[in-house]
Amino acid sequence: MNQFTPTARTQVKRLADRGKYDTETVYRILDEGFFCHVGFVVDGQPFVIPTGYARVGDDLYLHGSAASRMLRTLAGGVPVCVTVTLVDGLVLARSAFHHSMNYRSVVVLGRAVAVEDRDEKLRALTAFTESVIRGRWDTLRPVQDNELKQTSVLRVALSEVSAKVRTGPPKDDADDYALPIWAGVLPLRLTPGEPVPDPKLPAGVPLPENVKKYSR
Amino acid sequence: MNQFTPTARTQVKRLADRGKYDTETVYRILDEGFFCHVGFVVDGQPFVIPTGYARVGDDLYLHGSAASRMLRTLAGGVPVCVTVTLVDGLVLARSAFHHSMNYRSVVVLGRAVAVEDRDEKLRALTAFTESVIRGRWDTLRPVQDNELKQTSVLRVALSEVSAKVRTGPPKDDADDYALPIWAGVLPLRLTPGEPVPDPKLPAGVPLPENVKKYSR
Repeated sequence: MNQFTPTARTQVKRLADRGKYDTETVYRILDEGFFCHVGFVVDGQPFVIPTGYARVGDDLYLHGSAASRMLRTLAGGVPVCVTVTLVDGLVLARSAFHHSMNYRSVVVLGRAVAVEDRDEKLRALTAFTESVIRGRWDTLRPVQDNELKQTSVLRVALSEVSAKVRTGPPKDDADDYALPIWAGVLPLRLTPGEPVPDPKLPAGVPLPENVKKYSR
Repeated sequence: MNQFTPTARTQVKRLADRGKYDTETVYRILDEGFFCHVGFVVDGQPFVIPTGYARVGDDLYLHGSAASRMLRTLAGGVPVCVTVTLVDGLVLARSAFHHSMNYRSVVVLGRAVAVEDRDEKLRALTAFTESVIRGRWDTLRPVQDNELKQTSVLRVALSEVSAKVRTGPPKDDADDYALPIWAGVLPLRLTPGEPVPDPKLPAGVPLPENVKKYSR
């Protein structure tokens, strides 16, 4: 099994058994998620901004408007942290102290590199769309050159990476298990609702299967 | 309507109509969410870590083990960014370029203060549990003094704050609306599944209504 090497910055110290460093666990989390929180520093102040991403091989791609402050800051090669969190459930214990969440998260540390190569940029854009909804890219109006120019794509190498995973029931104090308090896990999942067609959709355009049967 | 004053750091610049600064919008987002991404800087490297939070009045509270690296770093009064993101849907356009997400997010900038006062700490702990699941605090085994000591509670004043909100259908290029491509919004929502009782739950402890009928 391939492993990321934990560094002093990515090693999970408290509750160390929740730390995972194998690429399979990390990539599965990254591939199930589709939006991340990007951290960067401006004048000593950290900023944390939600945005989309896609994994291609051992790289993570971010994108946005070429005019975006975040993208311009990151393209300067400053240190970045990209965090992806999937919430799996509420862990309801007998005491407030042992309440928790079941979740899977990945923390990526590194520096972003601006992608200039047209083919790599196109591959990344394809991956963004496909990571949100598989099969959609080929159904779309093709990308235009001016759109490529207006879009910044950044690459972050997946090298300094760790995952953190909590699963299972609450862990209560031994004396508390006998108490008549309901305890367990309430699973949570990001689920699709009924698709809402664009009011401007021409009559007769069918709802595609990948929207109708969407799941992550 | 009460407003936060946008600063150079919180003013939404691109797509400025998505920026919201009224307390009602900000507090509604904070109260619907229950976990955030906390950004802080160590040796120039930003870290972004998911964790729980609760709002009480005009303050946001974070908590964790007194032994946690993040909590100890933040308690030192360093600049922090707390971001809460609610994903509402996938915005599926006719072109890859106009794909987007419907979401509501809040970004809080500030410095954390360690809460030492026992009553304030208890109020915050109550709020954490109640923000995850309303009505649970009173059903639990009471908090013990050693648990209070092992828990760090941090307060971040809600003063430098902005929200960003996208709603509605895709905004496509005028020429693209006639294309026979399905476009619209696929709503997404964090929904509860079937509660999973702790295998160690004594027989006869009923499932409470606030778990059975959970919604956010």
